[in-house]
Amino acid sequence: MATNIWTRKHILSLADFILTEYETVLQTATSFREVLSRKTKKVPALQGQVVANLFFEPSTRTRSSFELAAKRLSADILNFAPGTSSLTKGETILDTAKTYLAMGANIMVIRHQHAGVPQMIAREMDRLNSGVSILNAGDGQHQHPSQALLDLFTLTSVLDSENPRLELLTGKKIAIVGDILHSRVARSNIYSLTAAGAEVHLAAPPTLLPKLFLDILEGKQKNRLFLHWQIEPALENADFVMTLRLQKERMTGNFIPSLREYHKYYGITRDRLKLCKPEVKVLHPGPTNRGVEITSDLMDDPNLSLISQQVTSGVAIRMALLYLISNQ
Amino acid sequence: MATNIWTRKHILSLADFILTEYETVLQTATSFREVLSRKTKKVPALQGQVVANLFFEPSTRTRSSFELAAKRLSADILNFAPGTSSLTKGETILDTAKTYLAMGANIMVIRHQHAGVPQMIAREMDRLNSGVSILNAGDGQHQHPSQALLDLFTLTSVLDSENPRLELLTGKKIAIVGDILHSRVARSNIYSLTAAGAEVHLAAPPTLLPKLFLDILEGKQKNRLFLHWQIEPALENADFVMTLRLQKERMTGNFIPSLREYHKYYGITRDRLKLCKPEVKVLHPGPTNRGVEITSDLMDDPNLSLISQQVTSGVAIRMALLYLISNQ
Amino acid sequence: MATNIWTRKHILSLADFILTEYETVLQTATSFREVLSRKTKKVPALQGQVVANLFFEPSTRTRSSFELAAKRLSADILNFAPGTSSLTKGETILDTAKTYLAMGANIMVIRHQHAGVPQMIAREMDRLNSGVSILNAGDGQHQHPSQALLDLFTLTSVLDSENPRLELLTGKKIAIVGDILHSRVARSNIYSLTAAGAEVHLAAPPTLLPKLFLDILEGKQKNRLFLHWQIEPALENADFVMTLRLQKERMTGNFIPSLREYHKYYGITRDRLKLCKPEVKVLHPGPTNRGVEITSDLMDDPNLSLISQQVTSGVAIRMALLYLISNQ
Repeated sequence: MATNIWTRKHILSLADFILTEYETVLQTATSFREVLSRKTKKVPALQGQVVANLFFEPSTRTRSSFELAAKRLSADILNFAPGTSSLTKGETILDTAKTYLAMGANIMVIRHQHAGVPQMIAREMDRLNSGVSILNAGDGQHQHPSQALLDLFTLTSVLDSENPRLELLTGKKIAIVGDILHSRVARSNIYSLTAAGAEVHLAAPPTLLPKLFLDILEGKQKNRLFLHWQIEPALENADFVMTLRLQKERMTGNFIPSLREYHKYYGITRDRLKLCKPEVKVLHPGPTNRGVEITSDLMDDPNLSLISQQVTSGVAIRMALLYLISNQ
Repeated sequence: MATNIWTRKHILSLADFILTEYETVLQTATSFREVLSRKTKKVPALQGQVVANLFFEPSTRTRSSFELAAKRLSADILNFAPGTSSLTKGETILDTAKTYLAMGANIMVIRHQHAGVPQMIAREMDRLNSGVSILNAGDGQHQHPSQALLDLFTLTSVLDSENPRLELLTGKKIAIVGDILHSRVARSNIYSLTAAGAEVHLAAPPTLLPKLFLDILEGKQKNRLFLHWQIEPALENADFVMTLRLQKERMTGNFIPSLREYHKYYGITRDRLKLCKPEVKVLHPGPTNRGVEITSDLMDDPNLSLISQQVTSGVAIRMALLYLISNQ
Repeated sequence: MATNIWTRKHILSLADFILTEYETVLQTATSFREVLSRKTKKVPALQGQVVANLFFEPSTRTRSSFELAAKRLSADILNFAPGTSSLTKGETILDTAKTYLAMGANIMVIRHQHAGVPQMIAREMDRLNSGVSILNAGDGQHQHPSQALLDLFTLTSVLDSENPRLELLTGKKIAIVGDILHSRVARSNIYSLTAAGAEVHLAAPPTLLPKLFLDILEGKQKNRLFLHWQIEPALENADFVMTLRLQKERMTGNFIPSLREYHKYYGITRDRLKLCKPEVKVLHPGPTNRGVEITSDLMDDPNLSLISQQVTSGVAIRMALLYLISNQ
């Protein structure tokens, strides 16, 4: 695998990812996807190493995906359960991380409801010369790099399953529809997809799509990002449509009148998809609110929905990320 | 092992189990019991395969038993924790199962508080040609096949530990006492024990033993099932007595006047056991309410109680079930 | 390893530990620390054996440490989660333990909020001739032997990292400061440190340091124990200072006026440490309330704080304890 050119110790954000890094991730994930198609799906790459899953914000889907990826690399896994933790005894987040460092963790996979926590832990691990790698598994509304990378792997694999690579997305139109404001998935995808040369069209109600989104990008990438407050111009001739989860539990600020209203104006339906290219495919990071972000029958249509492929890609991508940073 | 005749992909209910299936399960479990008596208790049978424990209804005992069985077959295990899950984010049960499918699960062990959920997931897995096997670990008040099979293994092993087989139970009288109405354990046992040729005598207060229980069986098996609203005729000359857990948390409908009253009329005591055969043995699926379903001293009497053997049988039976369906 | 002289089946308390036992634990942990410095940190010592972590009282830190120790010995691990357990269905603690015995557990690591529970389970396991070993991972305010042994390993390793042994502590002055009354850590350390020949000086407000503490020791060891209701005489010329966690969640009895007051009179500060030997080191069992028991900057000073070493020692000590009792 093309790991000799990989030098990144932590994966915290895609904001400063460079093209060769994206390509290396895609190539390494392709190799691991091949491993996963074998009868015995394990490799000894991380034998004797400890992956600590510190999920301060609960998650089944992402934690299971990382756990399985780590198991298939033969790592030992420690799961940190916030509900039963020392945090309730007054310990700081950094002290929790340092405890897992002292136990012998080599990689920490961190999810937290506040933006910046994985970065803070990474800085501390570096200051201590610990050698520990940090992987951001979602921090607040900031970044979720492994999700955007599995989306990138899914999209490029649709276009060339043998050799998924960035250039396949050049000039493709990708619509991202939904709760952009609260979405770390959207933020990470905006970096990776525009870096690959795709045109990214964001569509959401004004309350969920502030203009400042244009400013997160610079130079060429900024020219590939477009904002829409109606869904139709975003869908028109789109090659791919990414819907986002409507984070009902975060809807404290009266951003939308009702779920029904949201579905009426921004839900993905078979009718709306007629605006897209005929071969359009739909993605959703899950978990889905059926009938809100997307109609139930679209979700289950194997000719349209890439949702299952996204989950499958997730294990291969996370194996690749754990593997790449474990060698730094 | 005699697995060449096994063709069942999912284990959902014992209602349609045939005699050779019971025999194959007993023989395979006997082989694994031998493995468990060795110093190194592991076999590589499921190496590289993923067993997902989807326990929508919490359980320590059954989940631990399945987890240990899977570990001893060298499988990788993913535990789904409902408390911290995507379900609270609005995801459907089927979508949760499909997520684990997409991650690469080969077998799903499913417990749910509602009857029919494992069946529903199995149908969906078949519809998708997924190749995934479903094992029902208890669905509502419907079925709990692995419990009834471990009971069958325990009973036949008492009679011939080297070669446990159905015919050993022919003509034996087995009393099942307690909260029949709410018991998926009783429902599953009624099928397996009458199939083996035993006479099954159910005893419970009328509120916990509706007459319709007779109708779940047909033909010869129906003739082997008897209902009693007093405990004495059920115990008379019984070879085995199975007590059931009084599901206090389900006692919402005023089925019994009080725990004390229940114990007085239906509790298993040393005195009551005098009605049975001298060599009678007592079973309980656990967890036990000591002093309610059974007196504390009986529970701890190794000459009478098979409760520990049931738990031990559970690991061997679950290894057998996982192994048999993994080859389909 | 010097395991031929080890005969103890359960590790429940340090009250009756003898000198050769302490030395064997230190030597075995030293060997395992060497294993942990290798690239592949696993040994097959407990392959095929089952370690059941029965943590009736929740804990992240200690459970993770035992879990990692067991994984590095290649054991299979079952975690008992009290929140989702049969206990809520009315099962007794002993019945829970017997269930894990029947499943095939070889070692049970037990934490419980009430003193004496691990002892009770050990007696039952012996009565049943089960062969199961019990390791007390903290029982109420009684004992926490693995914590005191990792403290002993940390202290002696500071003095001679190649060959940590009891005599290194002879005549050393060790101050234990804080919530002595509620501390199982202090109770266990008092035994081990005085056995090693150290002078142990306890310092706490009178409400948290009853005089009866003197009576837990006898003979020579009693003469090595000193009580102080001010912190200064305890710190004077101390070689080591052990702070204890202020168990805020147990502070139901108005033992101290306020956390601020506590810090003012008993908190470890740079100023107070000037009373100690110049090469003094500070220990804390964690989790820490920064700014209460100890100032934040002291905790992070690698020249003073042994807190990380304690956590690291914990894994090696727990590997040693699991290994030693697994051979009995």
